Amino acid sequence: MKKLITLAIFLITGMAAFAQQALWGGQNIVSPEINADNTVTFRLNAPQAMKIELAGDFIPTQKRETPMGLVDMPGSVELTKNDKGVWEYTTPEPLSPELYSYTFVVDGVKVTDPGNVYMIRDVASVTSVFIIGGEHADLYKVNKVPHGTVARRWYESPGLKLTRRITIYTPPGYETGKEEYPVLYLLHGAGGDEEAWIALGRSSQILDNLIAQGKAKPMIVVMTNGNAGQEAAPGEAAEGFIRPSFMGATRMDGEFEANFPDIMKFVETNYRTIKQKSARAICGLSMGGFHSLHISKQYPDMFDYVGLFSAAVMPREGVTSEIYLNTDEKLKAQFDKKPKLYWIAIGKTDFLYKANQDYIKSLDEKGYKYVYYETGDGHIWRNWRIYLSEFVPMLFK
Amino acid sequence: MKKLITLAIFLITGMAAFAQQALWGGQNIVSPEINADNTVTFRLNAPQAMKIELAGDFIPTQKRETPMGLVDMPGSVELTKNDKGVWEYTTPEPLSPELYSYTFVVDGVKVTDPGNVYMIRDVASVTSVFIIGGEHADLYKVNKVPHGTVARRWYESPGLKLTRRITIYTPPGYETGKEEYPVLYLLHGAGGDEEAWIALGRSSQILDNLIAQGKAKPMIVVMTNGNAGQEAAPGEAAEGFIRPSFMGATRMDGEFEANFPDIMKFVETNYRTIKQKSARAICGLSMGGFHSLHISKQYPDMFDYVGLFSAAVMPREGVTSEIYLNTDEKLKAQFDKKPKLYWIAIGKTDFLYKANQDYIKSLDEKGYKYVYYETGDGHIWRNWRIYLSEFVPMLFK
Repeated sequence: MKKLITLAIFLITGMAAFAQQALWGGQNIVSPEINADNTVTFRLNAPQAMKIELAGDFIPTQKRETPMGLVDMPGSVELTKNDKGVWEYTTPEPLSPELYSYTFVVDGVKVTDPGNVYMIRDVASVTSVFIIGGEHADLYKVNKVPHGTVARRWYESPGLKLTRRITIYTPPGYETGKEEYPVLYLLHGAGGDEEAWIALGRSSQILDNLIAQGKAKPMIVVMTNGNAGQEAAPGEAAEGFIRPSFMGATRMDGEFEANFPDIMKFVETNYRTIKQKSARAICGLSMGGFHSLHISKQYPDMFDYVGLFSAAVMPREGVTSEIYLNTDEKLKAQFDKKPKLYWIAIGKTDFLYKANQDYIKSLDEKGYKYVYYETGDGHIWRNWRIYLSEFVPMLFK
Repeated sequence: MKKLITLAIFLITGMAAFAQQALWGGQNIVSPEINADNTVTFRLNAPQAMKIELAGDFIPTQKRETPMGLVDMPGSVELTKNDKGVWEYTTPEPLSPELYSYTFVVDGVKVTDPGNVYMIRDVASVTSVFIIGGEHADLYKVNKVPHGTVARRWYESPGLKLTRRITIYTPPGYETGKEEYPVLYLLHGAGGDEEAWIALGRSSQILDNLIAQGKAKPMIVVMTNGNAGQEAAPGEAAEGFIRPSFMGATRMDGEFEANFPDIMKFVETNYRTIKQKSARAICGLSMGGFHSLHISKQYPDMFDYVGLFSAAVMPREGVTSEIYLNTDEKLKAQFDKKPKLYWIAIGKTDFLYKANQDYIKSLDEKGYKYVYYETGDGHIWRNWRIYLSEFVPMLFK
């Protein structure tokens, strides 16, 4: 047999590797390179390019004139070309622990780093990413700990008359045990979908790591699609490879909140859940914080834990949904039932900062109990990952 | 309440959308645009660039001088700049139904299309993708049909002393029913991992669509990681955001085959499976075809359906695993037990074409029954999606 067929496996490998290089211009340089001192070096092989810049959320912001006035915008830096045509930039200072995003700008065109296959989509923008480990950022890494399962499923929403995609994290041991678990409903912001918390939020890593450290109770995490008219994330529905848009699928018209019981019914029918208020939490960022606020007050017996992360608070003008009526009465009903935790987190430079201060002032006036958590920075994922990491350990205790 | 807090939701949307544009250079042009006649227009906003090219698998190949001689290499074309700085190219002919890959080349730098968020990673290359619908390519689309669940799980391999990631498709209705299902083990090639068939192979769409059309039996599909030393796909294991390499994790030393029973045990313990030979299939591409060949002959009572897609056949020189010993005897044992289907598929220009012809000649000499399926093209995903679409309807009948 062996004599009959002489097939050198190196043929596959050599040929394919060669073809790949030639085909797609594989970059045989390392980028980004995280140096021993946590400075980071970026490289791009571009002998014919005239100018290469780097834009990223670790580069100091620069004030720029915009239609909205003088605004702090993310800065950019220029790379330097060596005699082999490789452009390079090393951060002057070590970067602190975090998940960072960046793009190159090649002769004016913003592109991801061809040397780095790790990217995250945020609405219609795709950026290259890397993690500087240490401190809180170690929660964002895949570590040698037991891992939960992440499933993409579809559920029926009779209320919305749609079959909708949903992302569900079950903790390590769920499938092989018989235990019932508490549930965290984790909601995304405008422009997001059922992929946002997994991709941008590193939610499965944060849960795996907090559970392994004994800091969080094992729980089921349900990541819904908060755009009531949308079946699934862009590319995952029958509409095909559409271009994602910030408000394209976002309605904030009360329909998502009104039909939230469809989701809870699906989860509590299909998973081994503890079906009581003390075993249910809901939180979300921006529009997802808005949803969490309104869902938890609409169904005051449902959630003992509520997290508003950089939340929008009030509905936009002209929305007539019943969900947003009688807010004072509904909040009173909710707080009279004494939720175990009503957590409000916001960054100091968030454009929703004042709205959140006004909201907590109104809670103070009524004597409603909440916990306030303030960070630096604004309306960004860096904060939302931190808020999730802080919120989860307080649940179901 | 409403008076207390005046929060215009448009602030979130306007601000964030503006910041995104400025930050990441959002391209407000449509690319790719699939025109009514299935020609496709590509666009890139690049007023400062000197030259923009397009490389893609729909552009006729060009013969190029390489270290391996004159080789057919994918071709490229130049885009034309208009007076607004937008570069454009429209294919001269309509494209036939298929999932296509492409990249731009901006002043010599190969990059994905900033106007298209849909990308697929193949080893260390990321390309932009789009689908021209119709015919077989409709199987690759998400259609309005019941959808199965795709779960990323982790299983213990005592043999490999690793906890390993695995991707599992369960058909529509699995979770809510009590039925037991047949299982297809679907294996990737060198450089791949447990994400390859989902991302490049569109396996969950193909299964959803074939099941909905009544052409395939509902089945569980198990997509393993065939690199015996690897816990998980790049970026999904504790080693972090490593650069994927073609043979980096690929050993082909017999260890994956020898420890395949760990995977089957996990699947048959954790899922409602029909535990008999007639309800088990195994297939794979390239190295995965090699694995399917050697696993199915090593465990001749296990699989009634075997699919070799562009398979490598013989182990490389110097590998001493017991798996590859006594091939003639093991094949005889396998074929004496009359598997229901032994399916060999290959493309005419595949560099493994001759090896596969030699292999089927050796089967002919022994009088072993198989089915041979030949296509055009070579060692490419276009063929492997077609092979999966052809193979699945023949299973478990």
